[in-house]
Amino acid sequence: MKHEYPEGFQNLINLLKGLPGVGRRTAERMAFSMLKWPPEKLAEFGTAVCELRKNTTFCPECGNLSSAGSSCGICSSASRDRTIICAVEESFQIFNIEQSGLFKGVYHVIGGKLSPLEGKGIDDLNIKNLLKRIDVDKVKEVILAFSNDVEGQATSIYIAEELKKKNVNVTRLAHGLPAGSDISYADSATIAAALHGRRPL
Amino acid sequence: MKHEYPEGFQNLINLLKGLPGVGRRTAERMAFSMLKWPPEKLAEFGTAVCELRKNTTFCPECGNLSSAGSSCGICSSASRDRTIICAVEESFQIFNIEQSGLFKGVYHVIGGKLSPLEGKGIDDLNIKNLLKRIDVDKVKEVILAFSNDVEGQATSIYIAEELKKKNVNVTRLAHGLPAGSDISYADSATIAAALHGRRPL
Repeated sequence: MKHEYPEGFQNLINLLKGLPGVGRRTAERMAFSMLKWPPEKLAEFGTAVCELRKNTTFCPECGNLSSAGSSCGICSSASRDRTIICAVEESFQIFNIEQSGLFKGVYHVIGGKLSPLEGKGIDDLNIKNLLKRIDVDKVKEVILAFSNDVEGQATSIYIAEELKKKNVNVTRLAHGLPAGSDISYADSATIAAALHGRRPL
Repeated sequence: MKHEYPEGFQNLINLLKGLPGVGRRTAERMAFSMLKWPPEKLAEFGTAVCELRKNTTFCPECGNLSSAGSSCGICSSASRDRTIICAVEESFQIFNIEQSGLFKGVYHVIGGKLSPLEGKGIDDLNIKNLLKRIDVDKVKEVILAFSNDVEGQATSIYIAEELKKKNVNVTRLAHGLPAGSDISYADSATIAAALHGRRPL
């Protein structure tokens, strides 16, 4: 007879394994650790999960996270410049960019990048709404903040072509040496990008 | 203005950070991944967490995990030898030992090891019930399966002293080279233990 966990416990382990980066051993460790939680904390966690979709919605303007169907904190802020839009792949990248504290415009979540291998095409991306916003908000500049990989670059090029028909400035984030990097260990593609984008001191 | 996640989302991140080995970035990654789950899966996960304590209880005999307050699968199995008890620190170690498929006795979960630094003393461990079981089940042998570290050894020695008053055989797991190990990389304490416990071929 194979030894098994009680059903509810095994079920929780199986669900924990669905989280990114969690394998069987980690899921078991998490489940055993949760057994030691006080019941109130378990109830709070369980409720937070059940109500995640109810409490966390997407901003109808930019696609960022928002509460209860309203616009997100950035789109509804009076201090942000609505004529500069930074387009990102996924909403969590907004938080990375916000932490730099430098960008005062608004965002637009495209919802991924073109990836024929994963079956992700132009129609799966939220580009139409971006084009609409250009007209409505008289947008002057769109910054494309996509990953510096093949899919990110292809997506940038496609969106840039569409935007240029609207007579709007299109820029992309600079490619080059990351902060704190030692040039001895930089790969040749990064050095090539850094040379290409060199600026006067 | 510092940018923040919507409240329910931030709350879930904070709770995920309570899981072992999960920091802020991993918790964020998990929460974003859960946003993409279908609502049924979220509901199932949330319910499994809420009802964890209700569905998963502890065996009144050995302290192992069980369902709905009953004895665990091992204690309630007719094919297990109740006169040999393997004492372990925590219930999840039972699953490791069961996977070896060699042990046909029953278990007893002590609930940790003596650790003065963490304020864990004799009264915090489930030793009394073990001593009771010796008399009730006419136990012949107790195998102490504790970690091979200072706290594990101190716990073994204390429990062994108590058990010897009951006239029961007390053994501990062998210490030595782990399976698949290269002797070139074994530490000196492991080699000392392996030499000390050498057996005729």
